[in-house]
Amino acid sequence: MFRQDAALDLAFQALADPSRRAMVERLAQGPATVSQLAKPLAMSLPGVMQHLAVLEASGLVVSEKVGRVRTCRIELKAMSAAERWIAERRAQWERRLDRLGQFLEDTKED
Amino acid sequence: MFRQDAALDLAFQALADPSRRAMVERLAQGPATVSQLAKPLAMSLPGVMQHLAVLEASGLVVSEKVGRVRTCRIELKAMSAAERWIAERRAQWERRLDRLGQFLEDTKED
Repeated sequence: MFRQDAALDLAFQALADPSRRAMVERLAQGPATVSQLAKPLAMSLPGVMQHLAVLEASGLVVSEKVGRVRTCRIELKAMSAAERWIAERRAQWERRLDRLGQFLEDTKED
Repeated sequence: MFRQDAALDLAFQALADPSRRAMVERLAQGPATVSQLAKPLAMSLPGVMQHLAVLEASGLVVSEKVGRVRTCRIELKAMSAAERWIAERRAQWERRLDRLGQFLEDTKED
């Protein structure tokens, strides 16, 4: 429970930055090297590495270095966990609205 | 585009804290007063008000004061936007994995 809480803290924190979301958007299309991630961002390589470190700490992205090239890709597990957390609360609230709507319908005076 | 980016920054930032997520979890069950939100959190009322301000600034929660009582509820629009952003990237990456699996299957030597 505590571990999951900490994981969600890091995932949502990582997604709370437009540059990091741009990196995730790029990686959703497929794995990319650090230079490929940096290109559309108009950002220095150290800047990109810093954002990448946040994304990796959150578990949303993993990277692997082969020779001198580091290749990054999305890690589904953390993405799904963050998505599911929101989806479950949203669905719970929607079900409540549905029941309320049904109640108002059922008790309507004609 | 920029406005949506800023909205997502605030939404994910708001969700990156366990106390604020606990408040959203409580509100997913239905509207609640500030005291009702504070009760299970073992937190001072000013502390809860501060977290509530972050949640309201993000658009995830709205509140209304009637007399001396402020009642809070979830706002679906911001919840759905944050959920959709993750879901779309996750789905894009999953489709890519599926195509890759299909390619490997199709090119397998028997």
